[in-house]
Amino acid sequence: MKIGLLHPGQMGVTLGMALRQNAHEVLWLADQRSAATTTRAQQAGFIGVETQLDLVQRSDAVICVCPPAAAKEVAGQVAGLGFDGVYIDANAVAPQTAVEIGTSFAERFVDGGIIGPPAYKSGSTRLYLSGAQAPEVAGWFARGALQAVAMDAPVGAASALKMSYAGYTKGLSALLLATQALAEHHAVMPWLAAEWEQSQPGTAGRVERAALGSAPKAWRFAGEMREIAASYNQADLPMGFHLAAAQLYERLAPLKDQSEPSLAQVVSLLLQGSPEDNAVSGATD
Amino acid sequence: MKIGLLHPGQMGVTLGMALRQNAHEVLWLADQRSAATTTRAQQAGFIGVETQLDLVQRSDAVICVCPPAAAKEVAGQVAGLGFDGVYIDANAVAPQTAVEIGTSFAERFVDGGIIGPPAYKSGSTRLYLSGAQAPEVAGWFARGALQAVAMDAPVGAASALKMSYAGYTKGLSALLLATQALAEHHAVMPWLAAEWEQSQPGTAGRVERAALGSAPKAWRFAGEMREIAASYNQADLPMGFHLAAAQLYERLAPLKDQSEPSLAQVVSLLLQGSPEDNAVSGATD
Repeated sequence: MKIGLLHPGQMGVTLGMALRQNAHEVLWLADQRSAATTTRAQQAGFIGVETQLDLVQRSDAVICVCPPAAAKEVAGQVAGLGFDGVYIDANAVAPQTAVEIGTSFAERFVDGGIIGPPAYKSGSTRLYLSGAQAPEVAGWFARGALQAVAMDAPVGAASALKMSYAGYTKGLSALLLATQALAEHHAVMPWLAAEWEQSQPGTAGRVERAALGSAPKAWRFAGEMREIAASYNQADLPMGFHLAAAQLYERLAPLKDQSEPSLAQVVSLLLQGSPEDNAVSGATD
Repeated sequence: MKIGLLHPGQMGVTLGMALRQNAHEVLWLADQRSAATTTRAQQAGFIGVETQLDLVQRSDAVICVCPPAAAKEVAGQVAGLGFDGVYIDANAVAPQTAVEIGTSFAERFVDGGIIGPPAYKSGSTRLYLSGAQAPEVAGWFARGALQAVAMDAPVGAASALKMSYAGYTKGLSALLLATQALAEHHAVMPWLAAEWEQSQPGTAGRVERAALGSAPKAWRFAGEMREIAASYNQADLPMGFHLAAAQLYERLAPLKDQSEPSLAQVVSLLLQGSPEDNAVSGATD
């Protein structure tokens, strides 16, 4: 099979590598991508093409791994170029977003949700797939580090699973960091730390890990949090958790790709607020 | 010392018992309280008085343990009756609410925050105290199951500590239950459970414990969640987490005091929404 990969980012490249391990060819759009992406794609042996039309015409299937906010646009471009193969959206989008994207591809659409880090290590990462063609697509990943799971469920299910899972893990990290920020704002952290030690042992460590693990990636979590909020809203559940998480992660955007931010840095950014937040609160302070 | 206790509910009675263990007299307002409260107060050897004026005039200090939404009103009544002793607000209120309550009592006000279950077992529960008289009040609890901690911090600190602590524990329970509800709404719970087992072991158990532990008390968590939301807002942090938690806990009010609600019952109530929520969403569905 020839499979177009939009795009070989940190996560996407490992999907392409898994396809290569299963003897498929992987095409990528070499135009206007970053140097890091270009290096990754070349090292992985992907075939660069110059235009989206090239990629669409030469691919039997297209897999999209991109920021959630761009998922609809990418799908629209591919559909608009007359693509008639299988389209897999593997992004962290709300189930209704997946269903909407799928309408352009009818039965040729497969909904995907990736859980875990970029798949370099066997057992670390799963690609959940739902929709009529999910078993076929799962078969393309039979070997390699990435485990593909065909869900025997309609389009929307893989996205719902991703939203549920990430809504908990990333929502929890945001809650931990917000708690620390609130306690520091009121200068009660020493007592909170002592109380945690006594009645919630391990919590201080979880805050530290949330700062180290989430803050450097926070800049790209906000869009995902908004998709999760939309998922809650569509299920008639309150969406406030994940809108708040989106706001908190936006405040941490300056830590983008910083390898080891200190908890103090994280808390300081959270308590400064975002420029927009400050403009609003400035009117009432 | 003669100490007025408003009111000897499930938590409050154990504060009074601790005062009795330290040889203080405890007065309570016997008028219009429930049979359960009356029984608790009598068994604990508290002295019943008939009017709030009686209680105020005969007490050297007054401790208030009541639902957060009633804290201001109770304090206002006591101040309005010319009380000139030490007033301790031990409720789960926002720091700014504590500060506001304190203005009626000047230097005689002590801010309190209780962390832990009703204090029957030594080491289970702490009463944090802040404000100028905190050390003196802590001394009244020198013996007994309840540990009083004088914080050497101004009024507002004990409440801020309570808000930070409960905002995490009760916010986390709400997030766990919401996650389960979202996954069940989309019928993806079997895959989420399998994924948790693999990458987040123990999470399913945490959801079960949140249902068992929080749902029967959810009816009285909503007010506390709103005070926590106000605390976040006042610190220029997003308040959505705890507004969402308040909404979720309100939906669980029908489980009031039910000893062992099943997770299925909890999820079913969460997914039905509250009558008010339904009215709102009904307009847009």
